[in-house]
Amino acid sequence: MTEWHRIVADRDAAGLRGILAEDVSLGAPPYWNRFEGVPLVAHLLDMILHTVEEFAYHREWRDGPELALEFRGRVGDLELQGVDLISVDPTGKLRRIDVVIRPANAVAVLTEIVAPRMAEYLARPPEERT
Amino acid sequence: MTEWHRIVADRDAAGLRGILAEDVSLGAPPYWNRFEGVPLVAHLLDMILHTVEEFAYHREWRDGPELALEFRGRVGDLELQGVDLISVDPTGKLRRIDVVIRPANAVAVLTEIVAPRMAEYLARPPEERT
Repeated sequence: MTEWHRIVADRDAAGLRGILAEDVSLGAPPYWNRFEGVPLVAHLLDMILHTVEEFAYHREWRDGPELALEFRGRVGDLELQGVDLISVDPTGKLRRIDVVIRPANAVAVLTEIVAPRMAEYLARPPEERT
Repeated sequence: MTEWHRIVADRDAAGLRGILAEDVSLGAPPYWNRFEGVPLVAHLLDMILHTVEEFAYHREWRDGPELALEFRGRVGDLELQGVDLISVDPTGKLRRIDVVIRPANAVAVLTEIVAPRMAEYLARPPEERT
């Protein structure tokens, strides 16, 4: 996970795509349905990392291929705390990511910022989704 | 944490109070401000456990006194997934609990159910808060 931490610290979108498994899926804080596939998941993670200010990891747990990473940050005036639950595949790539965040008003503000950008991204023809 | 799992499985409110440290605090999904003290935290946890249906723990991590416990459940038609981040004090009691849940609509429904009951509880004179 050293590579994951470097990517997060550097907001390295290209590096991010490189560590996601082909069948990666992400469960985001606002929705139950999952986002699937490298381009979509990488884009969403990248937007979250660019929207949450002062993003920093705190406690971290690892049990074989299963990880829980606590993070803290801020959107506007609102502090937030969350956990990335991550399953790593046998090749070391991230296969399943669930992101849970509290409090609810920070999730709402984050969604207000990220959702329209995701919608704009999804409205582009696939070949222009970079 | 065997005792914690038994208490959760049995919805044992009295047992719950017994494993909380005197200075316990809980960060709930909807709010940033923390709930403090055994009676309030025990009451809130008890209400959450009675409101979330099919509550069951899944992945669990422990690093010394720091734990992360993934759970799943349902409120009405809505499935939910969450994490309890728990710090245990040197005597083995729970000192700090943070509860993060996704998705946002499940948090909203849970809050709609639990918040009025918490308000009713807090409106009682302290000696009647059992």
